[in-house]
Order: sequence, then structure tokens, then C-alpha cells
Amino acid sequence: MDDPVVELNVGGIIYAARLSTVRKEPGKLADMFSNGVDSIPKDSKGKIFIDRDGVLFRYVLDYLRNQNIVLPENFHEKSRLKAEAEYFQLEGLLRSLDTESRQAGYITVGYRGTFAFGRDGLSDVKFRKLARITVCGRVALCREVFGDSLNESRDPDRGPMDRYTGRFFLKHLFLEQAFDNLQDAGFKCVASCGSGTSGGSAELKPGMDPEESRWNHYNEFVFMRE
Amino acid sequence: MDDPVVELNVGGIIYAARLSTVRKEPGKLADMFSNGVDSIPKDSKGKIFIDRDGVLFRYVLDYLRNQNIVLPENFHEKSRLKAEAEYFQLEGLLRSLDTESRQAGYITVGYRGTFAFGRDGLSDVKFRKLARITVCGRVALCREVFGDSLNESRDPDRGPMDRYTGRFFLKHLFLEQAFDNLQDAGFKCVASCGSGTSGGSAELKPGMDPEESRWNHYNEFVFMRE
Amino acid sequence: MDDPVVELNVGGIIYAARLSTVRKEPGKLADMFSNGVDSIPKDSKGKIFIDRDGVLFRYVLDYLRNQNIVLPENFHEKSRLKAEAEYFQLEGLLRSLDTESRQAGYITVGYRGTFAFGRDGLSDVKFRKLARITVCGRVALCREVFGDSLNESRDPDRGPMDRYTGRFFLKHLFLEQAFDNLQDAGFKCVASCGSGTSGGSAELKPGMDPEESRWNHYNEFVFMRE
Amino acid sequence: MDDPVVELNVGGIIYAARLSTVRKEPGKLADMFSNGVDSIPKDSKGKIFIDRDGVLFRYVLDYLRNQNIVLPENFHEKSRLKAEAEYFQLEGLLRSLDTESRQAGYITVGYRGTFAFGRDGLSDVKFRKLARITVCGRVALCREVFGDSLNESRDPDRGPMDRYTGRFFLKHLFLEQAFDNLQDAGFKCVASCGSGTSGGSAELKPGMDPEESRWNHYNEFVFMRE
Amino acid sequence: MDDPVVELNVGGIIYAARLSTVRKEPGKLADMFSNGVDSIPKDSKGKIFIDRDGVLFRYVLDYLRNQNIVLPENFHEKSRLKAEAEYFQLEGLLRSLDTESRQAGYITVGYRGTFAFGRDGLSDVKFRKLARITVCGRVALCREVFGDSLNESRDPDRGPMDRYTGRFFLKHLFLEQAFDNLQDAGFKCVASCGSGTSGGSAELKPGMDPEESRWNHYNEFVFMRE
Repeated sequence: MDDPVVELNVGGIIYAARLSTVRKEPGKLADMFSNGVDSIPKDSKGKIFIDRDGVLFRYVLDYLRNQNIVLPENFHEKSRLKAEAEYFQLEGLLRSLDTESRQAGYITVGYRGTFAFGRDGLSDVKFRKLARITVCGRVALCREVFGDSLNESRDPDRGPMDRYTGRFFLKHLFLEQAFDNLQDAGFKCVASCGSGTSGGSAELKPGMDPEESRWNHYNEFVFMRE
Repeated sequence: MDDPVVELNVGGIIYAARLSTVRKEPGKLADMFSNGVDSIPKDSKGKIFIDRDGVLFRYVLDYLRNQNIVLPENFHEKSRLKAEAEYFQLEGLLRSLDTESRQAGYITVGYRGTFAFGRDGLSDVKFRKLARITVCGRVALCREVFGDSLNESRDPDRGPMDRYTGRFFLKHLFLEQAFDNLQDAGFKCVASCGSGTSGGSAELKPGMDPEESRWNHYNEFVFMRE
Repeated sequence: MDDPVVELNVGGIIYAARLSTVRKEPGKLADMFSNGVDSIPKDSKGKIFIDRDGVLFRYVLDYLRNQNIVLPENFHEKSRLKAEAEYFQLEGLLRSLDTESRQAGYITVGYRGTFAFGRDGLSDVKFRKLARITVCGRVALCREVFGDSLNESRDPDRGPMDRYTGRFFLKHLFLEQAFDNLQDAGFKCVASCGSGTSGGSAELKPGMDPEESRWNHYNEFVFMRE
Repeated sequence: MDDPVVELNVGGIIYAARLSTVRKEPGKLADMFSNGVDSIPKDSKGKIFIDRDGVLFRYVLDYLRNQNIVLPENFHEKSRLKAEAEYFQLEGLLRSLDTESRQAGYITVGYRGTFAFGRDGLSDVKFRKLARITVCGRVALCREVFGDSLNESRDPDRGPMDRYTGRFFLKHLFLEQAFDNLQDAGFKCVASCGSGTSGGSAELKPGMDPEESRWNHYNEFVFMRE
Repeated sequence: MDDPVVELNVGGIIYAARLSTVRKEPGKLADMFSNGVDSIPKDSKGKIFIDRDGVLFRYVLDYLRNQNIVLPENFHEKSRLKAEAEYFQLEGLLRSLDTESRQAGYITVGYRGTFAFGRDGLSDVKFRKLARITVCGRVALCREVFGDSLNESRDPDRGPMDRYTGRFFLKHLFLEQAFDNLQDAGFKCVASCGSGTSGGSAELKPGMDPEESRWNHYNEFVFMRE
């Protein structure tokens, strides 16, 4: 058989793979197997021995089998796996892991809103009415998440990407679209707070509906990416 | 014995199953076993060798045993399992996984409410009184969750399913029924915010109870599906 | 030895138990072992073979050993375990699992409150003062959680258990007791929102303390059971 | 060797320990090994057989090695481990588990606050200003968490520990110190809500700063221990 | 071979490593292997026996291989691992674990804010406008997180690091920068609450915009480090 099954003892855990699999990518593993398996150190049962963490090798092997890596949805050993990829000199795996690890951070989305009240007999027609959806956070993160739907025209600063801004808003008024964009980018909502307005002693400006004005509120939603 | 136990070494993890089990569905496994087990590559202990991830094979085998798949409640390797189903060409498993993975997204449920105050001596009879439960989000998601209880009559847009709306409301006034519907559909509540109204300088309309008006509030609940 | 140790290969995972353990309850396992172990299919090492998921068998065995089942606090494979109980025809295990899986749903607890202000020189004596704790949700869930402390007298509907109500309140005024009741029943708090009242243009009713009235608020707590 | 290594097959999982370790504490294990290992039932490979759950035995052994038990931070099988401690009659382990399992429950911490505004030109000096931190919940839990910093002087009830109170407050005004106390005791913050005050039609009392009065708010934080 | 593979049975779990690996650091392991492997106790299969928890030894070995330790992102056995490091007298591992375990605690970040309204026709230019970001909590924690961006000038107390303060604020006005600083330091947002202001009967001070004043709010965000 010209593509034998090789049995590996990686730090005490046993794996098995075709020889062609472990040699597929240049790096420490391919070097190890370049002269056949005879010259490689073995454990007491004749299995090829690799002095590394046995658990993480599952993903190293996965990468070699499929030439790409799909990690579990809640994988918690990414920095540990990176250390293994570096040890085995697997450029492609390292690149995949770097691509996948997005920059952490917070983005706050808020809106000033009230309700639209019917004026002509449809007294029950009262919908959420948003005046504007604001976006605050690091410029680079905000652009990554919202792309073209971001309105930056009122932000006077045109500086570097790693500054913070409180001056972005969205071109549309669909709060849940903003939420979905954030979710697509790996952010999740971690907190929120709302507040109403104060009546104050100020007169309403002409043309403003007094009932609409009473229901004014500001809701703020905090999103985080780990 | 015409239905022998076959022992499999899947990437280093050992499984055992009846031959009839692994051959039950057309695909790569059935092909592999179509000519008996003699011609199949073996590991050093004579176990049939399969060069794939050993952990995920647990669910592949489960699917073959039961012809359907019940995943753990917090299963975090769905995309990884999909890759295995594709590799083994198991149409039914692939279909089950696709059916199960519902579209992610946010839905916001809100209500304008106050309290009903007793007018005739039952001064302590004060219940939550909801004026309307609003539903905002992607049209397709909202319809999936709320079905017939969704009132779309005030939404002027009749466009495609993947647009967003802030104009849906529910035909009933039971907030927790809406929550339960969302839970049934796999959404969970991730945030909420409340706000009162402002007294403003506006006069109350005739017939409105001033105490009820004082307690007006808008509570908004954010639900997410991963 | 009249009660030998039997070694089981369940889908590739090895278990060991006394023969009396696996035969303790009527069902598929007792049937299998009714004529001794000689006629049962074995794997290549002579271990008794069972073509089912190996991981879940841990709990099947546990049930047979103790005649009752204590699951891990965050057990995520309940539906999968149920499928195994059905396969092995273990009535008692099935019953335990059904008893344990409580109905999912949401209950909302809210209170209207303010602070009690001292009137006679103890100006610093200001405590939370609750007017009433309301309970909203499915009737069956509310009754299960709050039992006798639930006041249903103001709920005009006397219909079926699976309707929703917004008209229940508690006979006591201890918010944290309500929370503890919910926790005991497996609910956890997932969201909350607060709102103050509006001054409006309404006069205070005679006898109401103006400072108390200023601090009126409505806090609402959302509890969920998975 | 007078302290040999004994190999145990606990429900199918293999453990190894010194004989002195398994005999260290009186109970079922010490009894089992009191007459040497020859008379103890063995599995087919000559390993000592114990008909109990194999996974939980890891912690039983740990307890015997160290005479105390340190559980993982998110251990989810405490009730299952207790059942094992009972089975093996390990008094010390049972006691440790009982000590460690603290009473579940909710405590609510709230504060009435506003901001301190500068009166003499330092118009920007505006800090959070707390009037009082209130503590509500079961008396026993509140005392356990806050100890001497709890002021109970305004609580008229002097009854049993398992009653609820809404009348405790703290002797200091550092909100985060209260939070840290709760965290030290194993509580975590699960919800919070805030509300402002209503202007009402009431006049401010003499000496009250009108700007401070405008910013009055009540924030309430819900903590839970599982 | 002058650097043989040693096979270890640690409490029943099998590990394998180069001899040079287990001897790399002074301590109990190096002592054990100082005279070769012959005099060390073995299990029945000739593997070197160590009477400690088998699962945690994975990280002990990892530390010896790499001279540093990278733990999984959600590692829940830190106190258990520390006990192992103490047992094996591995100073470096112990130091790493101590360095890594940062002090738990809460920090509250809040801001008083409103919206900037356009005065000259740009009526839609309305951004979040923050007056000040306050920071409350233990002095040592606040300094660790915010460093030079912390303004302590208004805190009259100059006492020890372990006191609490409600008087710090930030030198900048970017809320999300504060959030990102907290995230970098391992804190996560666990709660938040918002409140508006009351109109009161007070006149606005000259020069204050009445609309801006109406939208005044105080939002408070609670961060926790475990």
C-alpha cells in the first residue's frame, strides 16, 4: 500500500491518518515524514511519537485533511491552537486563524424615537417612529460593520482609523437591520438603556404634535465582539 | 453471523457498529463496505480505518442508526458536522442539518402601556394595561414567529420578504404570549429598555384619566436568534 | 461468582457493570441478558456489543444502578437521552425524564413603587415602598411558580390553563421572594426595564405625599425557563 | 513494595492510585481494601472493579489524595457527586460539598442618586451623589453578604432569618463596594433598571438645589446566586 | 536514544513526553527522574505512575514543553491547576498562574448626556453629546484599566489603593473607548440602566438650549471581571 495508515501518539492521545495527509503541507510534519517513518521516534507500542498537546492536534489534522479549518462555534482554545500552528510551521493554518480572529470592541447603537399618532380618526395607528439611528465606536469597527449604510458626513474628523467617533449615523431607519448587521459581524447585544425626555418649562415649537413629543425617548444598545 | 460488528478507527477514535448500520444509507460509507470488509484499509490492529475527524463521527453513526438526528441542545460544531455529512455524501443528514439551522436575526417587541386604575372605590385594582404590542424586524422572521397573530394591515410596503419593517403589531395584547412565541422559534431575550413619558405643557385630551396618563411608559424587548 | 462483571462495548465506548445491574429493570437490556451472556453478539475482544451511542449510555447505566437519575446541572442532551430510554424500553427512566422536563416559557413580574419618606424629622428614613407586585404570563406557569401566594381574584377569565393573563398579582409585597420562587422553579431573570412617571398637568389627589409621588416608578422583570 | 499501585475499573473508566490513597478515609472503599486486593472482584483484565459512574470518580480520588476538594469553577455535577460521596460513605467529602453549596437566591441593591453640581464657578464638577444604598432580599442572605456594613436599624421585624425584608440599607455609600461584596459571595448581576423622577406640580423644599433635583434617579440592580 | 519517550500513567490517564521535557524544570518531577526511570514506581503495564489528577496534567506538560502556559479562553479549573503546580513545585507555572489571575471586581461607567441640536437650519444634525464620563469603583482597579486617561483631580481622598471612589472621571468623552479599555482588561458589561431628568418647576439657566435640556439623561453601565 503506497499510502499507509500512520498511527500517531501525540502527547499521549492516539490519532490515525494516511501518510499523504500528514505530509500534505510543508512544515515540521512534512519534514518529519520526508524520509519515511522508520527513522522517527516511536513510543513503546511502535506508534510515532510527537511531543505536543494531544487534544489540539485534532484540529491540526483536520486542517491537513481539508486544507481549511472549521472550528467549533464556541472554540475556546484559539490562542493555544495558534501556538501549535506556529510550532508545526503550518502557514495556511496560521493565516486562517489570523483571518478568523477579528478585532474585539464595543459599538453603541442608539435612536431617538417616539410614536406616530393618527390624526384623522385612526387613533389606534401608533407606530414606533425613529428620528435617527446613531452609531458610536471605533471608526474602523463601525465601517466594517455598516459599510455603505454609514453616514459619516457630519463627522468633522478625518483622521486615522483607530480613533473613536460619536458622530456617525445610519442612512436608513431600521433598527433591526442595524442589529442584524452587527450580528453578522460577530457582535452581540450585551446591554441597553432607555430614557424619556423631561417636559421642562419649554414651549413646544409650532407644528410639533404634543402627544408625539410626550413619548420622546432615547434607547441605547451596547454591542460587543469578543 | 450475517450482520457482524465492524470496528472502526475514525481518525484515531474507535467506534463499533453493525455492518448493516454503516451500510444503511447510500453514500461514501455504503460504497466503502459494498464489497465486504476485506478490501478496506486497516490500522495496525486490524480495525477499519477512516481518515476523518473522530469526534464528529459519533453523530454520523447516530444518524445511520436512527435515520434521524437529534443534536445536543448546545451543539457547537454544526458547521463542522455539515462538512462531514458532505464528505460522506449523506443526503438525509445534510437535509436535516439544513432544516435545523434557522436564519439568525433580531426581532424587537415593544409595548406602550400604563396601569388600569379603579374608579369606584376599588382603588387598589391597578393592572398593567397595554395599548399595543409592536413587532419590528425582518418581515420573513416576524412572519415565521408570529404567523396569524401578526397584523400587517398598517404596513404600506408589500415588497420582498427580506426587507425590514417597523409597522407590524400583534392582534392580541398578551406580552408573554409574544415572548413564548419567540422562545418556541429559538429566539431569546438579550436586552430591554423602558422609558416614561414627559408631562410636557400639553393638556390632556378630554376623557383621559390623568393618573393613567402619568404612568404611561414604553418598554422595548430585544430578542435574538443565533 | 454468581454476579459477574460484564464488559460492554456500547458503540465503541467501554463500560463495565455487574450483571445484576444491567438486568435490574425489564426492557431491552434485561431481555438481551435473560439467557446468559453467551448468545449475545461480541466485539473482536469478546466484549458484549450494543449498537447505540456510547456517551449517553453513561446515564442509562447510572439509572440502572440507582433506580433514579440525577443529571448534570447543565445537561444538554436530554432529548437525545430520551431517545435512548425509548430504545431500551426503560419506563422508569422515561418517566423521570418527562417529569424533569418542565414547560418552557416567560413570566413577567413588575411592581409599581416609590419610596417611603419620613415625615417627622427622620428625613433619612427612605425605603423602597411597593404598591403591588403584578404577575403576567401563562396561567399554568404562574400557578406552578407562585401557588398560594397568587391572587387571582381580579382576573375575570376563568378559562383553560393555557391562556395568558395580565391580571394576577401577589398577596405579599416582597419582590425578592417572588424572584426566589421563580428561581426555585427553574426560571432565570433575563431582562428588566424601569420607567418613571410623568408629572403631567394633573393635580395630586388629597393626602398624597408630593415627594413620594415624584419618585413613582414601574420596574418590570422578565423571567424565562428553557 | 508495600504501597502498590492499584488499577481501578470504575464503571468502565480506568484510574490508578496508590493503595494508601484509596484506603486513606474510613468508608466503603477502605472496607473494600481492608483485606488486601485479592478478594475484590476484578474485570476481565484483572483490574479492580467498582460498579459506579466512572467520570465522577475523578473527584472522589482527588478528595482522597488531598483530603480536601477543589471543584472546577463551573462544575455542573454537584448533586451527582454528592450521591457518590454518600455511596462511598465519605463523611469529609460530603461535608465539604455541603459547606460549598451555598443557598441560592436573589438580592436587590438599589440607590437613589443624583449629581453634585458645583456652585462656585467649578460648573463642571459634577459627580454621582448617592443618597442611600438599599438592600432587599432574604435576611439570612443579606447578612451573609454584607455583614457589619448592613444597617438594620429601620427594620421593625426581628423575626426568623428566612423572612424577607425591604428595609435594610448600607452604612456606606460606595455602590461598587456592595457589588464586590456580592461577587465575593458568589452572586452575579443579572438585571438592572433605572428611572427618573417626575416634576409633578410640587414645589421644591427650601434649600434643595433645583438642578440636583432634576437629575434625581433610582437605579436598581438585581443579583442572583445559583 | 539519549532522549527517550517516557510514558506516564497520571491517575489513570496516559501521557507521553520526551524525558528532557519532564526534567526541564527543577521540582518534584525533575527529582523523580533524576536517577533515570528504573527506580520509579510503575503501573501493571510498565508505565511510570504518578498519583495525581490525570486531566490537569495536560497543562503541566504543556508548561514544561513551552516554558509558558496558554490556557483555554474559558478555563474553569484554575484553582485546581494551581494546586497541581504547588504539588509539583513548579515555580514558573505558579508565577504564571498568579500573574494571570487578575483581581475580580466591578467598575461602573456612567455618563450624563443629551443631544446636540442644530441651530441654523441643520435641524437634523443631532448627535449624542456627552458632558462627562464618570468612573466608580476600587481605586486600584480603575487605575489599572484607565491609566493616564483617568482624571483624579477632584477626588479629595488620597488614601490606600483598596478604597472605593465615586469621584473619578475620564479625560476624554468617548464612551466606547472606555468600554474597549474595560474589555482589554478582561471586564465585561453585565448591566446598564438609564434615566431622564425631571422638568421640575425650575427655570432653565440663561443660555441653555431648552430642547437639549429636555433630552438630558444619565446612562450607567456596570462592568465585571471574574
